[in-house]
Amino acid sequence: MNNISNENQIESLELHKKLNGKLRTSLTGEVNKDTLKKFYTPGVGYVSSQVSNGLISLNEVSWRKNLVAVISDGSAVLGLGDIGPEGAMPVMEGKSMLFKRFAGIDSVPIVLNVHTVEEIVNTVMAISPSFGGINLEDISAPKCFEIEKLLIEKLNIPVMHDDQHGTAVVVLAGLINALKVVNKNINEIKIVILGAGAAGFAVANLIYYYSKTNIVSVDSKGIISNTRNDLNNEKKILSGFNKDQISGSLQDALKGADVVIGLSKADALNGSDIKLMNKNQIVFALANPTPEIMPEEALNAGAVVVATGRSDFPNQINNVLAFPGIFKGALLNNITKITTEHKIKSAETLANLVLNVSPNQIVPDIFDDRIVPEISKIIK
Amino acid sequence: MNNISNENQIESLELHKKLNGKLRTSLTGEVNKDTLKKFYTPGVGYVSSQVSNGLISLNEVSWRKNLVAVISDGSAVLGLGDIGPEGAMPVMEGKSMLFKRFAGIDSVPIVLNVHTVEEIVNTVMAISPSFGGINLEDISAPKCFEIEKLLIEKLNIPVMHDDQHGTAVVVLAGLINALKVVNKNINEIKIVILGAGAAGFAVANLIYYYSKTNIVSVDSKGIISNTRNDLNNEKKILSGFNKDQISGSLQDALKGADVVIGLSKADALNGSDIKLMNKNQIVFALANPTPEIMPEEALNAGAVVVATGRSDFPNQINNVLAFPGIFKGALLNNITKITTEHKIKSAETLANLVLNVSPNQIVPDIFDDRIVPEISKIIK
Repeated sequence: MNNISNENQIESLELHKKLNGKLRTSLTGEVNKDTLKKFYTPGVGYVSSQVSNGLISLNEVSWRKNLVAVISDGSAVLGLGDIGPEGAMPVMEGKSMLFKRFAGIDSVPIVLNVHTVEEIVNTVMAISPSFGGINLEDISAPKCFEIEKLLIEKLNIPVMHDDQHGTAVVVLAGLINALKVVNKNINEIKIVILGAGAAGFAVANLIYYYSKTNIVSVDSKGIISNTRNDLNNEKKILSGFNKDQISGSLQDALKGADVVIGLSKADALNGSDIKLMNKNQIVFALANPTPEIMPEEALNAGAVVVATGRSDFPNQINNVLAFPGIFKGALLNNITKITTEHKIKSAETLANLVLNVSPNQIVPDIFDDRIVPEISKIIK
Repeated sequence: MNNISNENQIESLELHKKLNGKLRTSLTGEVNKDTLKKFYTPGVGYVSSQVSNGLISLNEVSWRKNLVAVISDGSAVLGLGDIGPEGAMPVMEGKSMLFKRFAGIDSVPIVLNVHTVEEIVNTVMAISPSFGGINLEDISAPKCFEIEKLLIEKLNIPVMHDDQHGTAVVVLAGLINALKVVNKNINEIKIVILGAGAAGFAVANLIYYYSKTNIVSVDSKGIISNTRNDLNNEKKILSGFNKDQISGSLQDALKGADVVIGLSKADALNGSDIKLMNKNQIVFALANPTPEIMPEEALNAGAVVVATGRSDFPNQINNVLAFPGIFKGALLNNITKITTEHKIKSAETLANLVLNVSPNQIVPDIFDDRIVPEISKIIK
C-alpha cells in the first residue's frame, strides 16, 4: 500500500517508451533559404563577432539567457541512491520538463560519469558558458556541499543544489502555515529533523536562520550534539542548533518536540514516536516514495498537520513549488547569487499564497499558476 | 561586394535579438496531475531503476537516443578564428538548429571555456552519458585531430568533427560530379589543396583514400613535401600524397593541376593562378564568407566548374548536405564509429542524388529532402 503500485510503475515505463522520453528541442523560427542566411552563415558570423567583441551580450541573441542545466552524477537519486548517470537521466529529463512546464525555462539534463568534487566542479565550470543557470540535482552528501560552494564562488550565474534549497524553501513555507494551524510561535518551539543529508542540512539551516529556534537533528547514529566525535563540518553546524545539547536516540529527541521533519527513509517513524511529542504535533514525513510514517498513522497518533512528498495525500511538499520561480526570477533579474534572503522570501511568498490555511492546506497546489510569477518577483 | 552586406548583417542581428536565439526545449506530452506522476516522481523512479539495473536501455525511455551535442571551445569559428566560447555560441546554436531542421535530431550546443586536448577530452567524456552522439565543431587544428581521435577511441557513441569530415564528404561528392562535367578520371588527375587545417587535412585524406590520385597540399609556407622540416604529423601524411614530391609555391603546385580546392582564406587565388592549371579547370573556393576567388573571376580565367560555400552562387559546398544524414543514420542504426567507408558512401550517395549533372549543379540543393533518408540508409 505504501509504495507506488505495480500498475502505475508499468504505466510510467510505457509512457516513457511510447514518447521516447520527455524532452525535445524546437526552433524559434522557420528555416528556409531566406532565413538560413540570417540564422546561420553568413549572417551569424556578424552576431558571433559582435558577441566576442563585447558589443552585445550573448544573452540577447541566444537561448542562453533562459536556459538552465540540470546536472547530476547520479549519486543520490530519489530514494534509489547511487544509480549512476544513465539511471539518473529519466529523473533529470523530468526535472528539465518541470522547468519548462512550470516556468517556461528551457532546460537541458546533463548527467556526468565523473564523481569527485574536483571532477564535477571542473566539468561544470568547463560547460558553464553554455547556460544561464545551473541546477545541481541528486548529488550525494557531503560532496554536494563543497561542489555547490565552489561553483557559487567561481561562476557568475545562479547555481543551486535543489535537493538542499528547493526542499528547504518549501518545508519552511509549509512550516510557517502549519504553525498557524496549531497556533504556535516558531521562535518558541522545538523541531526534530530526522536525516542529516543534503536536504536535512539545508532545511535545518534555513529554519534556524529564519527563527533561531531549537532544532535537534538526528542521523542514523542518534542525536547530533557536541558529545559526538564523528561529526563532519556540516554536522558540527547542525550540532550548534541543538540548544540544550541533548544527546541520545530519536525517541529522546522527540520528547517535548512540536515538529518532526523526516528527510530520511521509509518507515523511520511510528505512532509511538509521534506520541512522545508535545500535543498538536506537526509531522512532515518527506521520504519518497514511501514516507517515514503514513499520514493516517500519524493522525491517529495525535498529529494535527501531516505533510508528505506525495501527490496522493494533502500537503505535498514538492520542490516544484520553489525552484521554477527562484530560477525564473534569477534569470529575469540577472541575479547571479541566490542568497538566504531570497530563500526566506520565497518561503514566505509561498506560505502567503495559501489564503485559507487549514490542516490539509499548508502549501499551494503545485499547479497554482500564481506561484512562479510571485516568487520570481522577489528574487531581485 | 565579396562580403555579406551590412544590411544583411543587421538583419541577422535583429532576428537573433527578436527571437532570443534559435533554440528552445519542448515537451513530448502534457504535464498535468495525472501525467506528472508518470513522467516524474513517483513513477520515474521505476524507470530509473530499470535503467540502472540494465533491464532497459536508457535510449528507449529518454530523448538521448536522438540527441547530439554540438561541442566547441570557440577556437576556430567560421572565418573569425579564436573568438572563445561565448562568441561561438550563436554558431553552435545554429548548428543545433540545422540538426533539428534537416534531420529531426534534437541537439544541444555546448561551448567550453577549456582549451587543451586533455581538458576538452575530459569534459566531453564526463558529459557523454547525456548524449547519443557528439558533433565536434570549430576546434582549431592541430588539437582537433587528437581530440577527435581520443574521443572516438574512448566513447561508444558516434563522434565526428564536422569541420573535417562533413566538409570532406561534400567536397568529394562535388568532385565526383565536377569530374563528370569535364570528363576526367579521378585516378588520373592532379589536385591542389590550398589550406592544411582541419578541413584541408580531412579532404585530402578522404580523396586520397577514395582515388589514390596525386594530391599536392599547400599551406602558408608553400607546397608540403618531404623537403620541409617543419611538418607536424598531419602534414607528414599530406606530404605522402604529393606523388612527385614537388616543392615550391602555390603557383608551382597549380602548374598542370586539374582541380584546386581552396580551404584557406579570402582572396588567396586570382585569375592568373587559375590560368596556370590544365584546361577545364575545376575550382572549389570554399573560404567563408569570402571565397579564395569569386566565381566570375575563376570562370573568366577558364574554369568550367566553380563551387563555393555560399548560397548566393551555384554549387554550394555546405556541410549540411552531409552531417544530418550521417548522424541520423548512426543514431537510427546504432553505429558507434563513423568509418571512412561511411564517408565515401555518403559522398557517392550525395553525388548520385544529382540527376542532371551540369557545371552549375554538382551537388544537391541543401533543402532537397531526399538527402537525409538516403545518406542515413547507408550508415550501417
